[in-house]
Amino acid sequence: MNTEDLLNQIAFIKEIDKVKYIQRKTKLFNSNRNENDAEHSWHLALMAIVLAEHSNEPIDILKVVKMVLIHDIVEIDAGDVFLYDTQKNHDNTDEERLAASRIFGLLPEKQAKAFIEIWEEFEAGATNEAKFAKSMDRLEPLLQNTSNNGGTWKEFGVGYQKVYEKKSVIKEGSQTLWTYAEGLINESVAKGILKKE
Amino acid sequence: MNTEDLLNQIAFIKEIDKVKYIQRKTKLFNSNRNENDAEHSWHLALMAIVLAEHSNEPIDILKVVKMVLIHDIVEIDAGDVFLYDTQKNHDNTDEERLAASRIFGLLPEKQAKAFIEIWEEFEAGATNEAKFAKSMDRLEPLLQNTSNNGGTWKEFGVGYQKVYEKKSVIKEGSQTLWTYAEGLINESVAKGILKKE
Repeated sequence: MNTEDLLNQIAFIKEIDKVKYIQRKTKLFNSNRNENDAEHSWHLALMAIVLAEHSNEPIDILKVVKMVLIHDIVEIDAGDVFLYDTQKNHDNTDEERLAASRIFGLLPEKQAKAFIEIWEEFEAGATNEAKFAKSMDRLEPLLQNTSNNGGTWKEFGVGYQKVYEKKSVIKEGSQTLWTYAEGLINESVAKGILKKE
Repeated sequence: MNTEDLLNQIAFIKEIDKVKYIQRKTKLFNSNRNENDAEHSWHLALMAIVLAEHSNEPIDILKVVKMVLIHDIVEIDAGDVFLYDTQKNHDNTDEERLAASRIFGLLPEKQAKAFIEIWEEFEAGATNEAKFAKSMDRLEPLLQNTSNNGGTWKEFGVGYQKVYEKKSVIKEGSQTLWTYAEGLINESVAKGILKKE
């Protein structure tokens, strides 16, 4: 055993505990309690495992699971950005890259490199795995908002057009899940919990 | 697509949100805030991925990750049992089996069966994957208690002997991690945050 490597791994394991304090805008199902990034990542990992068969393309499910487990770790330094934030770009900012380099950099070099690559691949959204991982990331809050009478859509005045546009990313990962999601969006309009201008 | 299967999968995904409300006895790192089962499971999954190389035996890491992600889902019905509880057995009670059957039973039949099998395999602790998953489950609270000046050991008056005995399960999954854990336990005694009678 290389003791230094193990100690570096333990340092990383301790550092990522902070993910449990990062509050998302979205609330838990049928709830007023904000979800945190660790809970969110856990839920996405299980969603990916359960829904894998609906992926448009064959996927390496272990890679998808790794992606969703680590995708929000950079928020320890960079903070959570709301999907519908108009001031701040959600994707792969310099701040997030710096965070990835610092936090994954706690790990032994080879492992750090592998984690940063997986995070970059998720952010780029080009591979089948990244597309499916991103579809999980968009589907969970949709399920939460419909369970919460509109949730963050109502709270932050987000309308049909924006929701439709952002959620259509689901289609890239899974046509089947997009058909289901589209149904939920239309249902939400019909119920009056999502405004169509 | 079989719509009924998808709706059953969504029902399961909604149901397991309740894992986020199940409080453990253990607190987060350097914190007074109790950890919940979703946060705990997320942390174990990443620990397993990061520490996999230290397993005594070759392991299917995807299976280990599945195990730790689902291992506490039964607590939605059966509740969290403290590792040092002297009244209630921690392992695979009838209550937990019923819970597994109800909650995983929300999934399409084949998937339900597969999840119950993985959960049973974890509980039995006989395979290499189950041994390594269990070593993660014992290591995390050890790291937390040492970061919290004794944490639950102090709070519930748990002494060296009990801790040593319960934590030695780590050895079954990883001799390397056990050597590290043993060091932490002895250090805790030396620091006076764990009582040796």
